[in-house]
Amino acid sequence: MNVDLLIRHAAQVVTPRGRGPLRGAAMGLLTVIPDGAVAIREGRIVAVGPTREIEAQITEAAEILEARGRAVVPGLVDPHTHLIWAGDRAAEFEQRLKGATYLEILQAGGGILATVRATRAASPEQLMAETRARMDRMLLHGTTTAEAKTGYGLEWETERRLLDLLHRLNAAHPLDLVPTFMGAHAIPAEYQEDPSAYVAVLIEEMLPTVAAWRFAHHGLWCPPWEDGRAAWFCDVFCERGAFDPEQTRRILEAAKDLGFGLKVHADEFEPPLGAVPLAVALRAVSVDHLVSTPPEHLEQLARSETIGVMLPGTSFGLGSTRYAPARRLIDAGGALALATDLNPGTSWCESLPMMMALATRYMGLSPAEALTAVTLNAACAVGLGHEIGSLEPGKAADLVILEAPDYRHLAYRYGVSLVHTVIKRGRVVVQDGVLRIPEK
Amino acid sequence: MNVDLLIRHAAQVVTPRGRGPLRGAAMGLLTVIPDGAVAIREGRIVAVGPTREIEAQITEAAEILEARGRAVVPGLVDPHTHLIWAGDRAAEFEQRLKGATYLEILQAGGGILATVRATRAASPEQLMAETRARMDRMLLHGTTTAEAKTGYGLEWETERRLLDLLHRLNAAHPLDLVPTFMGAHAIPAEYQEDPSAYVAVLIEEMLPTVAAWRFAHHGLWCPPWEDGRAAWFCDVFCERGAFDPEQTRRILEAAKDLGFGLKVHADEFEPPLGAVPLAVALRAVSVDHLVSTPPEHLEQLARSETIGVMLPGTSFGLGSTRYAPARRLIDAGGALALATDLNPGTSWCESLPMMMALATRYMGLSPAEALTAVTLNAACAVGLGHEIGSLEPGKAADLVILEAPDYRHLAYRYGVSLVHTVIKRGRVVVQDGVLRIPEK
Ligand SMILES: [Zn+2]
Ligand SMILES: [Zn+2]
Repeated sequence: MNVDLLIRHAAQVVTPRGRGPLRGAAMGLLTVIPDGAVAIREGRIVAVGPTREIEAQITEAAEILEARGRAVVPGLVDPHTHLIWAGDRAAEFEQRLKGATYLEILQAGGGILATVRATRAASPEQLMAETRARMDRMLLHGTTTAEAKTGYGLEWETERRLLDLLHRLNAAHPLDLVPTFMGAHAIPAEYQEDPSAYVAVLIEEMLPTVAAWRFAHHGLWCPPWEDGRAAWFCDVFCERGAFDPEQTRRILEAAKDLGFGLKVHADEFEPPLGAVPLAVALRAVSVDHLVSTPPEHLEQLARSETIGVMLPGTSFGLGSTRYAPARRLIDAGGALALATDLNPGTSWCESLPMMMALATRYMGLSPAEALTAVTLNAACAVGLGHEIGSLEPGKAADLVILEAPDYRHLAYRYGVSLVHTVIKRGRVVVQDGVLRIPEK
Repeated sequence: MNVDLLIRHAAQVVTPRGRGPLRGAAMGLLTVIPDGAVAIREGRIVAVGPTREIEAQITEAAEILEARGRAVVPGLVDPHTHLIWAGDRAAEFEQRLKGATYLEILQAGGGILATVRATRAASPEQLMAETRARMDRMLLHGTTTAEAKTGYGLEWETERRLLDLLHRLNAAHPLDLVPTFMGAHAIPAEYQEDPSAYVAVLIEEMLPTVAAWRFAHHGLWCPPWEDGRAAWFCDVFCERGAFDPEQTRRILEAAKDLGFGLKVHADEFEPPLGAVPLAVALRAVSVDHLVSTPPEHLEQLARSETIGVMLPGTSFGLGSTRYAPARRLIDAGGALALATDLNPGTSWCESLPMMMALATRYMGLSPAEALTAVTLNAACAVGLGHEIGSLEPGKAADLVILEAPDYRHLAYRYGVSLVHTVIKRGRVVVQDGVLRIPEK
């Protein structure tokens, strides 16, 4: 066998296995191969195993990476981000520390709607530059695929621009993006008096337009599974002050009829509104947040095909010590993924290892479960379990070589990047902790 | 005025001011200069102010750095680290997540004593390489000076080697180290039956030897205030299972007589043992941890010259939600510094901005107070308030240019490095987030 790239003598090669999500106790079952190797051809993994066995199968390797003293894990997948926005809310962060409530900040013109104003006002160049900086940082922290939501437009002109920019960024940058349309992120200022009119605009105008929209361009880095759909998923923020369960149901049903995969922001705050049973009934791909979700809804979720995505960075970002009940979901046999929730209000953090550090300390996850939650299960939460999320022959050659001998360092250490090398579809895009984006 | 380096048009230049620590409400009083500039000559700051005013004073600048859109802050100072050790305790981290107590881990041969075994067994080359990697990472996260304790030797031969290596690293690396002798970090295995015999060894043998020891070599990067003393400070871990208050007092008194500055690990766990009044009475430079310190001791500390150093990473590292009562110390008029406690057991984190993110969310600090706590007050906690910790004429030209327009981003965002450029004594040592260590 001839290969393009051989990574060998890794301290360990570590991966979950499968194309579907791991559930319950299986989440903690990683394959750990000491003195491991991964062989890559044409951007795909062709062999994984002990170095001695893999080398015996290879006649020629165009390039060899020695990974002595370093662990190799799958490229990380971030299944919930609000990647594209303009500006920051550092002043609001400081107000919140002083005790201002979410409602007070909103009434002072802050919160999501402040970012909506900044995003509407930003030039495409500014939005590209700011978003690209975040994508660079994600790649530097080991993320090779990320879901990316619109939702700081809340009007067609801006939502359209955000989708367009997400596709341009996807084509130009090695980080693969999975676009989600989230016009239902908040009630825009113009519709505060009549939210149902905005729901009607979403259902009758925006969703059908997004569903029919195709992108022709395929750039240097456009992922092979990119099919040109403007958005794969539709997501709704079901919460008091945002969309109520009935509005959520109507939007999601319309989206489903139009062929979108479904996602729901559910139970981020008290009280839970019943969005989990709704998501399960609609066979949503994922239901996200779940901080206040009652036990019976978690058990219903655990028995369903829907993946629970928990966002420990949002609890941390808000200075809360209340984290989503991950243990209960896993112990009930559910499939859990973790995400950053990357956004300017509650969690500006590009690092999935930081989420592993939080989830092991405050959500009861083992380091192995946390790794599954940001790789295979996260891949499934964006509909790509067959392509990415594990180191197995046939899958895309997305992987991370750590500056550490053991995958557990990703959770044990924190607040820094332990990424040495990132390989995206067979190409080195981070080397020695530094971005090295080649022409494809 | 001719200068070597001019940094200009920074979005803001932000600094506390003074040579002594800021106390109480003054901790939150930063100078913020919009469109700011810093001029540097021969490794020292010669002017700080609005770009227009500074430029008017300069006839020639050998080098100019444009800092548009970026905030400039003083180089960060980490006043409490256990920088030098060998190996890791990732397996112990996993055991702890499963519920193993500190005592169970100790009885299984883990804890500090596991690192002592690994450190005693390590070659100088291994210790240098592992420690240097941590120093690199600290520099990448904006730390330009760090205190560094021995204490994983607990026998003269190894403690001596650690001090020697710290001096060699200090001479060879731009990160300045302030060495602390901490033979009193734990009771070594050999003395578990007779701790007082180890206290006698410390007082009668090790401390006098360290006090008399001078280093002649001055390497490329040796700091100007390096006077060759093997250790500036003596530190004692006063805690149940380590050194009791009477042993602590005896060791500190001996150290004081030998000319060491004093530091104490106090009240990390329950119950508080009264080490704070002891530290204050002995005029210790700092007293560190303070998680369980009772209010009356905090008030005593606030009225003293001793600086309180709190270590939010230790609470976080242990998965605890109990943080040291920073607000109470500041509100009582005390001077607070923050540190990483960088160590393999409870907090393997090289990033002071991560400590700012924790302290603002869980200890009630404002972003401004948190910045003072990792700059000027931290400099004072290692006896260098006259040299570093603020951007003022006469001080060393240690500063950080952020990839963010506002210093508050250091606390608002988290889990990543926002450092764009690090200047150490007038030289660029991190550029565009990448280490660039020049020959001096
Ligand atoms: Zn979200
Ligand atoms: Zn310590």
